Amino acid sequence: MLNDIRKDYLLNRWVVVATHRRRRPTDFAKKEPTAQSVDKSLCPFCPGNERKTPPAVLVYLKGEKGVVKEKDTNGSRHKNWLIRCVPNLYSAFSPPRKGESFESGKAVGHHEVLIESPNHYEHPGAAKFSQLVHVINGYVDRLKVLSSKPYVEYISIFRNHGLTAGASLSHAHSQIIAMPTTPTILRDELRASKEFYEAHGKCVFCDIIEREKSGPRFIWQNESFVALAPWAGIHPFEFWIIPKRHQATLLDLKRGTVEDLAEALKICLSGLDALLNDPPYNYGFHITPSNKAADKFYHWHLEVYPKLSIWAGFEKSTGTYINVVPPEYAAQNLKHTIEKRQFND
Amino acid sequence: MLNDIRKDYLLNRWVVVATHRRRRPTDFAKKEPTAQSVDKSLCPFCPGNERKTPPAVLVYLKGEKGVVKEKDTNGSRHKNWLIRCVPNLYSAFSPPRKGESFESGKAVGHHEVLIESPNHYEHPGAAKFSQLVHVINGYVDRLKVLSSKPYVEYISIFRNHGLTAGASLSHAHSQIIAMPTTPTILRDELRASKEFYEAHGKCVFCDIIEREKSGPRFIWQNESFVALAPWAGIHPFEFWIIPKRHQATLLDLKRGTVEDLAEALKICLSGLDALLNDPPYNYGFHITPSNKAADKFYHWHLEVYPKLSIWAGFEKSTGTYINVVPPEYAAQNLKHTIEKRQFND
Repeated sequence: MLNDIRKDYLLNRWVVVATHRRRRPTDFAKKEPTAQSVDKSLCPFCPGNERKTPPAVLVYLKGEKGVVKEKDTNGSRHKNWLIRCVPNLYSAFSPPRKGESFESGKAVGHHEVLIESPNHYEHPGAAKFSQLVHVINGYVDRLKVLSSKPYVEYISIFRNHGLTAGASLSHAHSQIIAMPTTPTILRDELRASKEFYEAHGKCVFCDIIEREKSGPRFIWQNESFVALAPWAGIHPFEFWIIPKRHQATLLDLKRGTVEDLAEALKICLSGLDALLNDPPYNYGFHITPSNKAADKFYHWHLEVYPKLSIWAGFEKSTGTYINVVPPEYAAQNLKHTIEKRQFND
Repeated sequence: MLNDIRKDYLLNRWVVVATHRRRRPTDFAKKEPTAQSVDKSLCPFCPGNERKTPPAVLVYLKGEKGVVKEKDTNGSRHKNWLIRCVPNLYSAFSPPRKGESFESGKAVGHHEVLIESPNHYEHPGAAKFSQLVHVINGYVDRLKVLSSKPYVEYISIFRNHGLTAGASLSHAHSQIIAMPTTPTILRDELRASKEFYEAHGKCVFCDIIEREKSGPRFIWQNESFVALAPWAGIHPFEFWIIPKRHQATLLDLKRGTVEDLAEALKICLSGLDALLNDPPYNYGFHITPSNKAADKFYHWHLEVYPKLSIWAGFEKSTGTYINVVPPEYAAQNLKHTIEKRQFND
C-alpha cells in the first residue's frame, strides 16, 4: 500500500503521510541518544551483509576494462562491489500499482539508498577520489533511469551525515527520492529564476557566480566549480557548490566535470570536517525537474547545510531564520582552512 | 549594533544574520548534550535572580484588587511577581537607532522573553489555570505595545519546550519577537486565505473548522476553541487550536475567551504530555500583521509542533516533508487520552 501525499490547507507545501508504516505513540518513548552502529557485522550496508537489503537496482563492479554496471536478482547478490544502490526499506515513495497515482493522493515514486563505498566510514570528506567519482556517476545513472518514469516529476539526491542530522545508519550513504511533484523550494526557485531571466536576459545563478566569485563569500574553485557561502544562508557555515558553466541538471555531466565535482566535494567537505571537527551535515542537489522546460534559466547546484543549531518555535512557525554565523565569516574560515590543508599536502 | 536581515537570492525568505554576536567555529565543538539547569540558584528566571535579566518591560504583581501591572527600572527589580517579561539577552531583533531600519538591511524590532511563572517547571501542560490566564494576558499586553511601534509589521509569539526543541533554559518561558516584515509562512497564508475569501465569500479557517469539527482529525473543543490535527500536518502529533469565532488577531480577546484559551492550552498540552511522556515541542501563534487589512479573511490560531523527528537533507533541500504519524491517528490518540484524563478527574 502506498503512502498518502497531501497538500496543506493553504500553503503550497506537501507532506507524505506514512499511512502504511505509521509509528505508534510508544515508538517515541524518550530514549538516550544511542551511538551509531559500528559493529560491521550488523551494518546492512557493509560487505557480506548484502542480503540485509532488497536486491540492488544498480551495482558497480570492478571489471578488467573499468567499471561494470550490474543489478542484483532476487535470488542473489553481487559481492566485491564498488557502490550499490538499493530500494529504501522504509520507503516514503513507492512505484504505483493499479489505481494509485499522485492524482489519487498517493506518494508514487521511488526511494533509494546509494551505498557509497564498501568501507563503512568512507564519507565524501574522507573518501578516495576514485570512489567519489563512482558515487557521482551512480547519482547520474539513477537520475537517468528515474527521470524517464512517466509518474516522476522531480528527483531529490541528498545525504545525511551524523545522527543529529538524521543519519540513522552511519555507513556512508546517500538517498535518492523520485517524486510526482516539484517540491516547494524548487518550484519557488524556478519561478524566481524564470522571472530574473525574463527581466535581465541571463541566468540568475550565472549572475550570482559573477557577483560572488571575487567577494567576501567566495570559498574555493576549480576549473568547473565554485564554492561560496550564500548571501542569505540560513544555516551556520552553509555553503553551495555551483558549476561555472550553465547547466540545468546533472544528466549531461562530462567525465572531466564529474572529476571536478568529486574534487570539490572532497576538498570542501574535508575542509568543513577540519574546521568544525566532523560536524553533522545534510546536503541536497537542486536540479531542474525532469519534464519542465527550464534549461535556459535554471542552474543546478549542491547545497550543504551543517547541522549546528536547532530550528525552534520561531523558525518553524514563521519560516524566518536566525543565522548566528555571518556567511562572510563562514566563507573566510572555510577558505583559510582549505588553503592551509592544501598547502600542507 | 543591530543584526543584519537578508533576503535570499531567489526565495521570499528572510534570515537574521548575527553580525554583532556571531559565533566562532570553536563554539560548535561537539559536546555531550547537557541536562537542563535545575539548580534554581543559577536559573536567571527563578525568583531571587531578577538581576540576572535586563529590567522587565512588564511585571504582573498580585494586588489587593487583582493583578497590578508594573515595569522594572534599571536600578531595581520587582519581587513576588506572577509573570515577568524581559528583553532577550541574545536578541535577534533590536530597537532602531539613528540610520538603522529594515530598509537599510537591519533587523529592527524587539525580542522578549515572557517568564510564565515563578515556579521553574510550571509549563502550560502542568500549570495552574489562573497562571495560564496571566500568561495569555501577558501575550496580549505585549502585543498591544509592540504592534503600535511604527517599525513593527509582525509579531511572533512562540514557546520552546525541552532541550531538543531548542529551549536552552528549562524555566517555563515563551518568547515574543516583533519584526519589521511579514514572515514567509504568514505571507503565504495571508495570500491564500485572501484568494479563498474572494472565491468563496468566507474565511478559509471558518471553513476548516466546519469541515473538521465532526471528522477524524477532531481532538477537543470548548465553547470558544476547537483543537484538531491538520489534514497535512508536517510534524508527528501536530495539532492546532483555533478560535471558533472569526477573529484575525489576539488583540481583542474577551475575558471569557482568555479563560477558554487557558483551558485549551492546559488540556491539550497535558494530553500531549500524558500520551508521549512529556515530549519536547514548539508552539507558535499565527496572527494577522499589525498594519495590514486582513481582518476579514485571516483567522488567528495556535500551531503546536511536537519535536519527535529530525528534518534532514530531503526536508531541508526540498521543503517537502514526511510525517510518520497520520493526522487521523494522532487526533484519535490525543482525543482518547484527553477524554480518559477528564473522566478520571
